[in-house]
Amino acid sequence: MSDSLFSFELIAADGDARAGVFHTPHGDIPTPIFAPVGTQATVKAVTPAQLAEIGASLVLSNTYHLFLRPGADLVAEMGGLHKFMNWPNPILTDSGGFQVFSLAKMRKIDENGVTFKSHIDGSTRRLTPEISIEVQEKLGADIIMTFDECAPPLERAYSELAMARTHAWAERCLMAHRRNDQALFGIVQGGAFADLRRQSAVTISSMDFPGYAIGGLSVGESKSKMAEMIDVVNAILPANKPRYLMGVGVPEDLVNCIQRGVDIFDCVLPTRLARHQTAMTRLGRLNLLNASYAHDTRPIEDGCACYTCFHFSRAYLRHLVVAKEILAATLVSIHNLFFLLELTRQARQAIQEGRYKQFAEEWLAAKDSAG
Amino acid sequence: MSDSLFSFELIAADGDARAGVFHTPHGDIPTPIFAPVGTQATVKAVTPAQLAEIGASLVLSNTYHLFLRPGADLVAEMGGLHKFMNWPNPILTDSGGFQVFSLAKMRKIDENGVTFKSHIDGSTRRLTPEISIEVQEKLGADIIMTFDECAPPLERAYSELAMARTHAWAERCLMAHRRNDQALFGIVQGGAFADLRRQSAVTISSMDFPGYAIGGLSVGESKSKMAEMIDVVNAILPANKPRYLMGVGVPEDLVNCIQRGVDIFDCVLPTRLARHQTAMTRLGRLNLLNASYAHDTRPIEDGCACYTCFHFSRAYLRHLVVAKEILAATLVSIHNLFFLLELTRQARQAIQEGRYKQFAEEWLAAKDSAG
Repeated sequence: MSDSLFSFELIAADGDARAGVFHTPHGDIPTPIFAPVGTQATVKAVTPAQLAEIGASLVLSNTYHLFLRPGADLVAEMGGLHKFMNWPNPILTDSGGFQVFSLAKMRKIDENGVTFKSHIDGSTRRLTPEISIEVQEKLGADIIMTFDECAPPLERAYSELAMARTHAWAERCLMAHRRNDQALFGIVQGGAFADLRRQSAVTISSMDFPGYAIGGLSVGESKSKMAEMIDVVNAILPANKPRYLMGVGVPEDLVNCIQRGVDIFDCVLPTRLARHQTAMTRLGRLNLLNASYAHDTRPIEDGCACYTCFHFSRAYLRHLVVAKEILAATLVSIHNLFFLLELTRQARQAIQEGRYKQFAEEWLAAKDSAG
Repeated sequence: MSDSLFSFELIAADGDARAGVFHTPHGDIPTPIFAPVGTQATVKAVTPAQLAEIGASLVLSNTYHLFLRPGADLVAEMGGLHKFMNWPNPILTDSGGFQVFSLAKMRKIDENGVTFKSHIDGSTRRLTPEISIEVQEKLGADIIMTFDECAPPLERAYSELAMARTHAWAERCLMAHRRNDQALFGIVQGGAFADLRRQSAVTISSMDFPGYAIGGLSVGESKSKMAEMIDVVNAILPANKPRYLMGVGVPEDLVNCIQRGVDIFDCVLPTRLARHQTAMTRLGRLNLLNASYAHDTRPIEDGCACYTCFHFSRAYLRHLVVAKEILAATLVSIHNLFFLLELTRQARQAIQEGRYKQFAEEWLAAKDSAG
């Protein structure tokens, strides 16, 4: 349906790891890639110019939040999300499903959708597969998502029910979707159960989506269980379509999941940590409030090429944190986002050079050696 | 004493208005100029790269704040303020005098200085002319200020006393100052009393400072009184030295005071207004929270060349404000700072072209016509 404007080009494979390019109307997305999250049509504390300088390509925004405020009609009236937030490059919106289940107060699920109370003003709102698609079409992102139900990963009965509903809703989203300049991705659910994940992957890949997402992981299950689920699903998903692991941004998870054939990641982690004065490094996290950094002339990470590391010491960043200066959030967000984007750039390079396994081992060893 | 590394070059005069260049070891300051304030070694919510893009030249930082946190020794240890905050261009530090009188809890003034309680932790601290200079030498700004006492402008007896103390302290600052790569400016006080201002201007200009400041205005007296005081003082200050009006950032005041021969201004107003969702324009202030901007596709100000106006609508900025996003403070700060710097750039151009009076009239008429 939207294949004409979108295509996934596989450039190199190294084991199960893949390097590719997803072509979209707003530009190419090199994969593997980490997508910064701009929940309310802004990556918190970072300008689009700074995002571009970091090397961001795909940016995610949340349908749930924009549906409630400022509303999809307003965004459409302003020329769509790209123009509204001044991000001329690719954008992905999620379906609102996850946030309805994690943020909204009071929700009532039926076969047709979910009625809930807004976490902002308590007003009663409703999302269905058709409304989610309508909202996402108004927002106008390049990649949009099917409306799904995300169950707690260890509850078998609920996982089965939510999966069945997710499959039915995926069909309805496909039917409802009209814009051919948007790629609608299907979402695999099934909790932490291999047989359900297998069943979901088979069902969702039988529908003709230009890309596939794995939802409902990294929400409480173990790391080994997450890896197992990804292996089960990726063995079934078509190799010639991009694979998006939703909501995962821990560096080690990126390294491991790229090795298992994941192409796209997103997470609020780097910017959320930054607003809590925490910097991400290859050797682990730094809490910049720590008194040990008061006289530290080093950058957050030696050798890092980001604006923050190039120009500012840990001592200065600690001063900003102690003095409660907004600039701390901006500078640490820039570093943390650069850090994850640089990780995916280096991973891509390693895949192209056929040394991904070695790259992954070195990455994980550096972290382990730091304790 | 520091004349070798500093010089003030007068390029053009138009009535009492002057266009010049103040040469400093960290670069040239074109005058008239507005200096953004980076109180705690950061212009709030704005990176140095953004400041440079705005066209900022001189940046101010506050000795009182840095003395208390992180401390002048730490800044010196980190290579000085330019390196610490990554502003390689000219920096000015004030003496701490004004903040001791406006921010500190409990203060005891004697002939040698001021003992006060820190507004941060309540600890007892002391500033004297000698300590202020020592702290400012450790911070390492290009322009530093004499330690002064700023009295309420309408209290005659206190104004006389504070002026006398300011004069004695100015002598002591001159004696204490050692670094020849810093220009120490003297400060004229005298409240809202023409005879005191005259006396202060005569006394301070009899000391050999490379530049002169007018302190203690825009703190409660009327606009016409402020203008009168500036006229009295500028008639006495030497024409071949820069004149700095401290703490003034209202656009109309800049226009009027440039006409009266002021060269340098600083104020927290543009960044403080920005953090309270208020944008500055030629026609007056916009409160971006106002519902009338919800669907407004226009930039803050038509024709403005700043990053914010070039890329974002009022509707988007209002959305950021309503959603309490940090980016609102950053984008509106960028606009407000650009607005004042552009005002001084245009004023300078008008002076060079001999049409400052017309420029000032048009500026003030535009504001008046908007009500």
